[in-house]
Amino acid sequence: MPVNLKVPEAAALAAIAGVELAVVEAGIRKANRRDVLLMRLAEGSSVAGVFTRNRFCAAPVTVCREHIAGSAGIRAMVVNTGNANAGTGETGLADARATCAAVAARLGIDAAQVLPFSTGVIMETLPMDRLLRGVEQAAQALGKANWLDAAHAIMTTDTLPKAASRTLRIGGQPVTLTGIAKGAGMIRPNMATMLGFIATDARVSPHVLKAMASRAADASFNSITIDGDTSTNDSFVVAATGQSAAPAITGINTPDGKTFARALDELAIELAQAIVRDGEGATKFITVRVEAGASIDECRKVAYAIGHSPLVKTAFFASDPNLGRILAAVGYAGIDDLDQGAIDLHLDDVLVVKNGGRHPAYREEDGQRIMKQQEITIRVVLNRGAAAATIWTCDLSHDYVSINADYRS
Amino acid sequence: MPVNLKVPEAAALAAIAGVELAVVEAGIRKANRRDVLLMRLAEGSSVAGVFTRNRFCAAPVTVCREHIAGSAGIRAMVVNTGNANAGTGETGLADARATCAAVAARLGIDAAQVLPFSTGVIMETLPMDRLLRGVEQAAQALGKANWLDAAHAIMTTDTLPKAASRTLRIGGQPVTLTGIAKGAGMIRPNMATMLGFIATDARVSPHVLKAMASRAADASFNSITIDGDTSTNDSFVVAATGQSAAPAITGINTPDGKTFARALDELAIELAQAIVRDGEGATKFITVRVEAGASIDECRKVAYAIGHSPLVKTAFFASDPNLGRILAAVGYAGIDDLDQGAIDLHLDDVLVVKNGGRHPAYREEDGQRIMKQQEITIRVVLNRGAAAATIWTCDLSHDYVSINADYRS
Repeated sequence: MPVNLKVPEAAALAAIAGVELAVVEAGIRKANRRDVLLMRLAEGSSVAGVFTRNRFCAAPVTVCREHIAGSAGIRAMVVNTGNANAGTGETGLADARATCAAVAARLGIDAAQVLPFSTGVIMETLPMDRLLRGVEQAAQALGKANWLDAAHAIMTTDTLPKAASRTLRIGGQPVTLTGIAKGAGMIRPNMATMLGFIATDARVSPHVLKAMASRAADASFNSITIDGDTSTNDSFVVAATGQSAAPAITGINTPDGKTFARALDELAIELAQAIVRDGEGATKFITVRVEAGASIDECRKVAYAIGHSPLVKTAFFASDPNLGRILAAVGYAGIDDLDQGAIDLHLDDVLVVKNGGRHPAYREEDGQRIMKQQEITIRVVLNRGAAAATIWTCDLSHDYVSINADYRS
Repeated sequence: MPVNLKVPEAAALAAIAGVELAVVEAGIRKANRRDVLLMRLAEGSSVAGVFTRNRFCAAPVTVCREHIAGSAGIRAMVVNTGNANAGTGETGLADARATCAAVAARLGIDAAQVLPFSTGVIMETLPMDRLLRGVEQAAQALGKANWLDAAHAIMTTDTLPKAASRTLRIGGQPVTLTGIAKGAGMIRPNMATMLGFIATDARVSPHVLKAMASRAADASFNSITIDGDTSTNDSFVVAATGQSAAPAITGINTPDGKTFARALDELAIELAQAIVRDGEGATKFITVRVEAGASIDECRKVAYAIGHSPLVKTAFFASDPNLGRILAAVGYAGIDDLDQGAIDLHLDDVLVVKNGGRHPAYREEDGQRIMKQQEITIRVVLNRGAAAATIWTCDLSHDYVSINADYRS
């Protein structure tokens, strides 16, 4: 059961001028399931992407990187679920390129103007006949799908679609952003596939959009994962069609740039949190905030150590305030000169540990009360600097094991 | 159910001349449970220890480090289960010192000659009245317990005691080693408490024993854990009483030193593997071997990434050859210049991946056959150097979640 995750009405997701969507059932892995999404972008769109740093990256990621670095201008994106096209060697690369070529032929553009994405099982070859048939159908159906359909089409073990919109004004003119995301393997999202797409009608130059996408990814999708480690297929792409009447955004630090980047960050964070809320087997949504560290990096290290500890996560699943497990995680997070005697630990508004030891006023009932909530904030104060970092995670339940033990069946 | 772990007969565990044992039920956390172990060592014993690198180390670890670094000569070790005396601040330190003082008073030695060990729940204060009463009873019972009793007394969530002996000849004279260990939180043993004690009647100078203990720990207990990360309480101690008639061992590289160190390594590895075999909820014993790396360090990184991946571990629990998850773990292990096209993956004798892609001859039935076994070797060949490393781990099952969600109840 997702934790406080609501599916938006289709009508609440704003269409983006310059973006046409198509969704089809191609039978990639299972029948009767929307599993191919095609997105066509208006000419002149800016596109920026942030991709997995996994050295075993999937074939489509390699092709995305090439095409985004090229000068052809991205005009289409094609996503399949059911098969990740990862660990597939040269065959996989050829398949990803053939998919781009098929989309290009149908849309009258160049293959280098197409970005391919795949998510699903690793180490199996794409069923190219079915995928290419799906691409053909999708090209004929462009414009018929809405963003909620699109969010559905990219789901794998997700139980709910993830999508949201934002509207703002730039130079007195309305600008709209709509995004979708998928991802569910949550104990270590670096190993599941996360896909995020945000489209906007704002006019943003490619280099500015690149800086903004990178910042938004750090604040959102990279704050639900291990420091920089990501799956074979993780991709986050922002496309700006420039179809709005608003003036062009020319820098990340101009007033308009700041306004737009803030909306982009917020939307990305909402999507990233939606992934955690729908984490495999999740029953709790946990915010881990580490404060008063010497650097953001060390705060993130501590936050990740807590957020990935199976012992911490199972304690939260059980609503058991076995909070010493959090201290143990702080201790092995990799800060060599950490002074345990300086550390405070709060669970929501309850002070649990003061100066590295159980606070005399802490009562187990208070910890128990917080642990029973569906949303909990763990706050660790290192008392050695002024830096802070926040990540989001979920608990580890029986259902996580069931889902991952049965994924392919 | 532990994986192929046999409990030795008490008679198969050799007594060590110069070591007396006592085990009592002190009611530290639960009644009717052996929870305090006292070991007295003959005067002149050499003692070496390897302790957790967790910055949030428990109070007894701090005291052990002080006492081992001192010149008093260790004459006794006292272990309690049920409470880890970690995250207990100044009170915890005072309690650990008071425990040493109580043992010392009873045995007529100095408090600095006593090593204290605790394992159990974190962040709760030791019940000193019960512990001190237990120490008193134990001092009166010295010599009445055998090593199997001792192995039982240090268990927490272990389902079986772990103990083994070795005998060898040095200079034509018999030398004996007997060891015990505990530890069960296995998905990340760095967060559970691992305790290991090995006693021998060999005569080994302290500095030689220190080098040997460090080497044995690296080959054993540190190969079932994340690189250097360990729990708040992890401790491995080797005590050599020198009561054997064999000549003194004066160096780690002398012929006698090599013979003895090999026996010590083997015994430590057997005990460490026993911890994995009895891992919480374990149903499979998995050896992860990484070969042809550029350095031992990078081989260990890759092995740990595989060994700690919840997705890999749940696939093994399900006997599902979803082996792409292993490739994903290899890819995010942190080798920046890894060439995925060079990598081979074997599951026991089955070649699954050749040059980074699924091997054409690989058939799912073959993977399935191996996955159903209770003991499995994952072998990754990086093809970029001559270094290799091996670690041992287990799968992740429903029982792991149950055990850790219910640990304190």
